[in-house]
Amino acid sequence: MQAKHPQDSVCIMTDVVLPGETNPLNNLFGGELLARMDRAASIAAGRHAGRVVVTASVNHVAFNRAIPLGSVVTIEAKVSRTFNSSMETFIDVWTEDRISGERKKANEAIYTFVAVDEHGSPVKVPAIEPQTELEHQRFAAALRRKQLSLVLAGKMNPHDATELKALFI
Amino acid sequence: MQAKHPQDSVCIMTDVVLPGETNPLNNLFGGELLARMDRAASIAAGRHAGRVVVTASVNHVAFNRAIPLGSVVTIEAKVSRTFNSSMETFIDVWTEDRISGERKKANEAIYTFVAVDEHGSPVKVPAIEPQTELEHQRFAAALRRKQLSLVLAGKMNPHDATELKALFI
Amino acid sequence: MQAKHPQDSVCIMTDVVLPGETNPLNNLFGGELLARMDRAASIAAGRHAGRVVVTASVNHVAFNRAIPLGSVVTIEAKVSRTFNSSMETFIDVWTEDRISGERKKANEAIYTFVAVDEHGSPVKVPAIEPQTELEHQRFAAALRRKQLSLVLAGKMNPHDATELKALFI
Amino acid sequence: MQAKHPQDSVCIMTDVVLPGETNPLNNLFGGELLARMDRAASIAAGRHAGRVVVTASVNHVAFNRAIPLGSVVTIEAKVSRTFNSSMETFIDVWTEDRISGERKKANEAIYTFVAVDEHGSPVKVPAIEPQTELEHQRFAAALRRKQLSLVLAGKMNPHDATELKALFI
Amino acid sequence: MQAKHPQDSVCIMTDVVLPGETNPLNNLFGGELLARMDRAASIAAGRHAGRVVVTASVNHVAFNRAIPLGSVVTIEAKVSRTFNSSMETFIDVWTEDRISGERKKANEAIYTFVAVDEHGSPVKVPAIEPQTELEHQRFAAALRRKQLSLVLAGKMNPHDATELKALFI
Amino acid sequence: MQAKHPQDSVCIMTDVVLPGETNPLNNLFGGELLARMDRAASIAAGRHAGRVVVTASVNHVAFNRAIPLGSVVTIEAKVSRTFNSSMETFIDVWTEDRISGERKKANEAIYTFVAVDEHGSPVKVPAIEPQTELEHQRFAAALRRKQLSLVLAGKMNPHDATELKALFI
Repeated sequence: MQAKHPQDSVCIMTDVVLPGETNPLNNLFGGELLARMDRAASIAAGRHAGRVVVTASVNHVAFNRAIPLGSVVTIEAKVSRTFNSSMETFIDVWTEDRISGERKKANEAIYTFVAVDEHGSPVKVPAIEPQTELEHQRFAAALRRKQLSLVLAGKMNPHDATELKALFI
Repeated sequence: MQAKHPQDSVCIMTDVVLPGETNPLNNLFGGELLARMDRAASIAAGRHAGRVVVTASVNHVAFNRAIPLGSVVTIEAKVSRTFNSSMETFIDVWTEDRISGERKKANEAIYTFVAVDEHGSPVKVPAIEPQTELEHQRFAAALRRKQLSLVLAGKMNPHDATELKALFI
Repeated sequence: MQAKHPQDSVCIMTDVVLPGETNPLNNLFGGELLARMDRAASIAAGRHAGRVVVTASVNHVAFNRAIPLGSVVTIEAKVSRTFNSSMETFIDVWTEDRISGERKKANEAIYTFVAVDEHGSPVKVPAIEPQTELEHQRFAAALRRKQLSLVLAGKMNPHDATELKALFI
Repeated sequence: MQAKHPQDSVCIMTDVVLPGETNPLNNLFGGELLARMDRAASIAAGRHAGRVVVTASVNHVAFNRAIPLGSVVTIEAKVSRTFNSSMETFIDVWTEDRISGERKKANEAIYTFVAVDEHGSPVKVPAIEPQTELEHQRFAAALRRKQLSLVLAGKMNPHDATELKALFI
Repeated sequence: MQAKHPQDSVCIMTDVVLPGETNPLNNLFGGELLARMDRAASIAAGRHAGRVVVTASVNHVAFNRAIPLGSVVTIEAKVSRTFNSSMETFIDVWTEDRISGERKKANEAIYTFVAVDEHGSPVKVPAIEPQTELEHQRFAAALRRKQLSLVLAGKMNPHDATELKALFI
Repeated sequence: MQAKHPQDSVCIMTDVVLPGETNPLNNLFGGELLARMDRAASIAAGRHAGRVVVTASVNHVAFNRAIPLGSVVTIEAKVSRTFNSSMETFIDVWTEDRISGERKKANEAIYTFVAVDEHGSPVKVPAIEPQTELEHQRFAAALRRKQLSLVLAGKMNPHDATELKALFI
């Protein structure tokens, strides 16, 4: 199974914010953005794995910037690191005023997917080799996030989470 | 501004999984569940605040159990702790086989909302007083999650995150 | 087949009114509410029967109160009486202003479902035993509604509809 | 205000049953049909009134025939009788196998609408003059249904419902 | 296989413009109208063929008139000419102000469908015999459009497109 | 008003085919693809114009390849030529098997948009300068298509359509 690069699986999803997707302040509903990011990220993970993938977890997502009705939203998802059958996928969201064209980073998110066979059982995925500086940073940070996830789920003793522990000591 | 109890704002949303909401394995799409949880949790936060609320962040969410087409899904959302204008909301998801009636915990999630005025500016929300044992546990853990969120966002020095640091030392 | 109580199957569905679900007066479309009530009531009937259920009929439904965009709508459905393979389900709808929290009864409706096997043929359902005062009233009234339904469908001679006839004489 | 004929406002809505609109037996969801009938009937009532109309009530609707995925469904709605600001609208539903073309009556329904002005207050609508034999029958029966509706809502004494009472004595 | 008339397959689809289907100018989205026309035209073609049909091509469609939110839109689709397994379907769109009732032609479109068997392979369809003056005109023009379509796809030499060539010489 | 390049406005929209968007052969509905192409192309045209844009026409679109449920569909839209206030936008559609990753060209389409001001009146848009070989070809062909569109609409005498006439003589 040959290693791949994050660029091999990048998924770009550009779409507008329609009236049926807004909250009472006329901005994109948080839930609608969460759903779009899930679709984009699952395409990236599916391309990397060459398999059906299912969402395993969503890491901390911050909504820093309201996205008004009529905005153009671009979601870019790339696999950032793999662990056996799971893939951490990094998602960057930009918003763009439909008239001025001004683009701003709206938020980042990290979703994890598991590749499965036709019975829904996990299957191994190819390794990933980061190429750009940013891809290397995200690859490295993924291990800390993995440990954090295991600690929070009670599946790893905090004292064994060496990468994470280093942050606090 | 009088304190309230988690029970005052509890939101229960029971609905079925329709064919248009499933992935290629015929289970509920992760993105659709994220969107439903956002709607349920925003109702709970809105009731607590008596204000329009907007999604500020989503904490780690684990999808432990696939939810097949035709299942009945019950989402229960309650405010677990408040911080000035923000509210941490705890969400429990149960799934129930439409025929056997068997209920299982499908997953938990934590979303944070901010109460805003008509211009979208944050406004103070009532304090919350946990009552049950579980509400007390979740109230206490919320402070660690708050610190973790600030550390991950680079807005708090890990050494000042005393609650969190205690976990690792 | 053991009798059950209405409370065993109660289904609570709380959700907001989104922009895509409103009429030109910015209130919830009648048709959207009819569809939500059908989903909630079919969950209650399905729980009682432990079977797939299909909508058999909708009794008189009055829309007494407009439900504005952004409102929180709570639908509560409970089986009120059973007849062999059919179940009468009573639905109460409350609406709640998203800001003031004020709750008002918006309307009541009654839907009837039939439990079916995998070929779509009707199957017998458990009996129901009302417990509260209101459940007893609704249980009693269900027989009159059943007779009315049969008379209107031309399947019962009005003179044999003893419960109903008593109303008019 | 000149009287109109039922034919002046007839609304025909033909559409297919898509996968996202079916129940676990692969037939059209009752709730989806209720919503489509509401849209078709509100168009007919709106044409008669020349006003915005809102759904006031749904009379007894029987679902006699399952409508499978992929069927072509034709809904025909016509105003059957008017009372000041309200209009009773009669709906006939036919289903047609997409391949054989065989058409069958699937069900009938009656919805009542109220015409409103820009503030949502009821306004008077034109009278209606039935023309065909069937339109005359439905016009006559509408008075009995009106009385039944008032009796069920507790707004008319059963003994004053002369049209209705005649059925049972 | 007996010839049919355009009137045998006419499909009328009347529906309203809902808020979730509009662009930032509060008019019906072009894409939504394209999708509705596809559904209506595929019903007409499916009735003519007595087969499953798939969209083969869309001819030039001009959007001459904006269709505001709340309008009633009537789409009328009829098969205009057949060629072995393909059917040209002509679509007329009228819009109607919900209050004044004023009707205007909004646009015309032509979609072509192919009838297929259960494996997706093309199958022969009945011939069509136009009856009205307009049906005869559209039947004749269909041959020019067929040639234009073949020329644009590089499947016919422009010099062999005799019907079309006559237009320009 | 400075000229722009096609690359400046390119819009990439990658998304999956969900169950609610398929026809009875389990392939993407033609109408759904038409709607997605409209959204993608309107984003490209809107970026070029820096204005709200409305769909003016759809040129010949051929559906050459069925797109099965679960496929990943990539739509790439670029402005190909401008004429005062209108923009011809070229759309390429690729489909990709979710498992094998194999990509195939599914179809091409051309939509024309008009830039409008806040009253819906047409406004001038920047000129466009093609750069790649393909962009030059599409730019040149756009004039023929413009003439064809005017001839078909009866707004240009076929004998004056010099570019188009040359094809047939």
